[in-house]
Amino acid sequence: MSTQTFEEISPADFFYRNRDIAGFTNPSRAIFSSIRELIENSLDASEYAQVPPDIYLRLSYVGEAGPEAGIYKLRIMDNGSGIPPQHIPSAFGQVLFGSKYKLKQTRGTFGLGGTMSILYGQITTHQAAYIASSTGVSKIYIYRIMIDIQKNRPIIVDRKILLNKEKWRGTIVEFSLEGDYYRAMPKILEYLKQTALVNPYANITFVDPKGRLYRFTRATTKMPPPPKETLPHPYGVDVETLQRLIHITHSSNMLEFMKTHFHRVGELTAHKFLTFAEIPETKNPKKLKREEIVHLMQMMKRFPDFLPPDASCLSPLGEELLRAGILKELKPEFTAVYQRKPSTYAGHPFIVEVGIAYGGSIPKKGDFIIYRFANRIPLLYDEASDVSFRVIKGMNWRRYRVSPDMPLAILVHLCSTKVPYKTVGKEFIADRPEVKKEILNAIREIAREIQHYLSRQEHVERERKRLNVFAKYLPKIARFSTDLAGKEQPPDIEQLLKSVKKIDE
Amino acid sequence: MSTQTFEEISPADFFYRNRDIAGFTNPSRAIFSSIRELIENSLDASEYAQVPPDIYLRLSYVGEAGPEAGIYKLRIMDNGSGIPPQHIPSAFGQVLFGSKYKLKQTRGTFGLGGTMSILYGQITTHQAAYIASSTGVSKIYIYRIMIDIQKNRPIIVDRKILLNKEKWRGTIVEFSLEGDYYRAMPKILEYLKQTALVNPYANITFVDPKGRLYRFTRATTKMPPPPKETLPHPYGVDVETLQRLIHITHSSNMLEFMKTHFHRVGELTAHKFLTFAEIPETKNPKKLKREEIVHLMQMMKRFPDFLPPDASCLSPLGEELLRAGILKELKPEFTAVYQRKPSTYAGHPFIVEVGIAYGGSIPKKGDFIIYRFANRIPLLYDEASDVSFRVIKGMNWRRYRVSPDMPLAILVHLCSTKVPYKTVGKEFIADRPEVKKEILNAIREIAREIQHYLSRQEHVERERKRLNVFAKYLPKIARFSTDLAGKEQPPDIEQLLKSVKKIDE
Repeated sequence: MSTQTFEEISPADFFYRNRDIAGFTNPSRAIFSSIRELIENSLDASEYAQVPPDIYLRLSYVGEAGPEAGIYKLRIMDNGSGIPPQHIPSAFGQVLFGSKYKLKQTRGTFGLGGTMSILYGQITTHQAAYIASSTGVSKIYIYRIMIDIQKNRPIIVDRKILLNKEKWRGTIVEFSLEGDYYRAMPKILEYLKQTALVNPYANITFVDPKGRLYRFTRATTKMPPPPKETLPHPYGVDVETLQRLIHITHSSNMLEFMKTHFHRVGELTAHKFLTFAEIPETKNPKKLKREEIVHLMQMMKRFPDFLPPDASCLSPLGEELLRAGILKELKPEFTAVYQRKPSTYAGHPFIVEVGIAYGGSIPKKGDFIIYRFANRIPLLYDEASDVSFRVIKGMNWRRYRVSPDMPLAILVHLCSTKVPYKTVGKEFIADRPEVKKEILNAIREIAREIQHYLSRQEHVERERKRLNVFAKYLPKIARFSTDLAGKEQPPDIEQLLKSVKKIDE
Repeated sequence: MSTQTFEEISPADFFYRNRDIAGFTNPSRAIFSSIRELIENSLDASEYAQVPPDIYLRLSYVGEAGPEAGIYKLRIMDNGSGIPPQHIPSAFGQVLFGSKYKLKQTRGTFGLGGTMSILYGQITTHQAAYIASSTGVSKIYIYRIMIDIQKNRPIIVDRKILLNKEKWRGTIVEFSLEGDYYRAMPKILEYLKQTALVNPYANITFVDPKGRLYRFTRATTKMPPPPKETLPHPYGVDVETLQRLIHITHSSNMLEFMKTHFHRVGELTAHKFLTFAEIPETKNPKKLKREEIVHLMQMMKRFPDFLPPDASCLSPLGEELLRAGILKELKPEFTAVYQRKPSTYAGHPFIVEVGIAYGGSIPKKGDFIIYRFANRIPLLYDEASDVSFRVIKGMNWRRYRVSPDMPLAILVHLCSTKVPYKTVGKEFIADRPEVKKEILNAIREIAREIQHYLSRQEHVERERKRLNVFAKYLPKIARFSTDLAGKEQPPDIEQLLKSVKKIDE
């Protein structure tokens, strides 16, 4: 028996070997994933710069690649914050390097998508990627880079600096990749449409390989308030986080420590909590023993009086925009929307917003149509593994007089400083119990509204039938009675008919 | 506008922050994932040592942790190959360090599971993990380790060396973690049962927190031949792989290069291919230009005459074991099994095996029951996102006289030197077109068999009814005719009945 060989691989090598987990499974998914990752980076960059996004995307066909794929060139240009020149090579040429590792509501969360797209382009076409960026200063920095996958480091092939006379700010990325646009097309167009729907302040232009122009024009220049970075909420903190905070803290006592490092913990809450946990307020956090840190964590989970997370760090769509979006896009007969109060999982605040739409232009598909969004991006793949799908499937819809063969669409939007995706490709959201509960409660709420609407509809229908009976026979009875009485003119039955009407129509 | 802050994080930190993607979503999943990752490591280690696995697993309850979880201690002991002492700390204390980064059929593929389990234990309980291992030499090495998550390095808390008088070989891992055993229990037991089913040469003992003993005893000591490491198949090679091979090769010409580094490429194939690709046989691979490497890759995808991958590096279950397993476990009225020929995706050989079972003890669930296996491990979560589920759902079953409300179970086993999982938690397999096609063809095959069986059944049923008609009326006609003829004794109609029988029953 020989000895097993052990080795260490770089994160870039890991994602290169396992690109399925980052959404680069086949030529069709690869082209979809590249487009969405770059659009999401651009939207985040514009939000960061607080300007309404102007995104220009172009995909051109370069040539044949193999039996099932072509070579394409992808170019994206935005007016976002730009990238400081010293970070450009790493931002696109190094895996696990980025600006997204914050407790903050962003579309990107893994700091991986842009680099993965370029890595995929490189392993299929062996071309360098072109990146131009400026933060609006006097210069524009232009790089051509490749990735040393084994070392997880960018290779700078070429670098140029241009004068930025017009004070342009933004980023341009251009690279070649193997892909299958025609299989990916329906998903890409659906993605752009749904993205425009929940980012109504964005201009998105897409020129496809046939030169067809798709333009999604902004409906407003009003940007939502920018999402803010937050402190961790005590309910979701683990030992690792506590240790990191203890390591960096300047607080010399536990009261200060609690107030400084946790979301919505003020003097009073800190005092109450430390009494509850039986930890002296004057204790130096750096002197906490291992078991005391575990105790602190467990007490944080059990203390009932922490304030719920503050929604001001989140930027939900809001009921108004949600309703407007549904009415515009789905044209239903009836709609109800609902926004839950902010909640928390593992220390991350989140808000669930849902909408339901019935009838009108909504097709009968034999099953509910589900639209899923997370931090203002649509999720289009692997629906059946998403927590929303499971919640919706697990509900007893008969209780709400609803059946899957009705023309019914349900929309779920989760926004959070950290969306619990289950794949690096951001296809679907994990079954975190707290998230599940909030989605369930939100959908129950709109389910009740649809129930009221449907039972009202049913009632109206029943009443209409009842009145029809009266309206049909009353004139005959009136005629008969008139004849019987030997009169000429039948009595006025309008009053009578009105009196049996139970409802206003 | 401030500047965005960029940072680099370690792979351990990445998986710590995003543990949902590694199967550690909630206390129930965490305990399931820890158990399966460690069992799979043990099975791989025994296979490596070529001894029938003896695995002892114990989960003990330590105390309450929070409103929805308890603290448990998990201990696993195997008789596998053991880990060389210098690698023990990194094997369990460093992410992306391992022995699984080979083109070889193994259960583990990411080299992540063991470390993730221990990392999860650490962040929830702050305890060091205990590891004892010996490769059967004169010493047993015992470590207590923790993980420096930010640096992705093991911290050795304690180290001991014992004399190994009995030449024990194997590994013991013990650590504490937060979990919810009672919610995870059904999945854990199902996992152990299905694992025993496809590893009939393994002894697995599990002692649960209530002290209940579950024992899965081996049915045979015959081990399948050990899976072998392979070279990449030319059909699935990308530019990165080519470059790495060019970098390490000692071959000074393309003919040698092709013969040395690719799966099933001999003198003749290498010669034919290079002629096809118009690359001189004498060309030095290290002198290939960038475009020539791309050309080489594209030609490899297009050349029609590479031999299919050799199945000898794979270790499928085989039709016999598959059938035996189905009959034992599912007790159906009818079963059919089928093994496809080896195929390849992205340079990785794979084999699809399927089984179908009908009637008998199989319950009617209103939908097909699907059992999924990959490299001899059961996949229990996120069925709806699995390629097998999609293939099965997408088929026109009516063509095969099959409907979902029949008592029907379908089993799919994929074995490969690299299973294209979509999550690091190994829950489901990605939609690789080649894999999808093989699964579809395999299921069509068994679908035809079930179709024959069912139509035969139908035919038998129809015939039975027809004979019933004869059997019912013939005696009456005989009686009537007898009476009519004034006879006493009716004629013998047995012969007549036999003659109308079209089938043997």
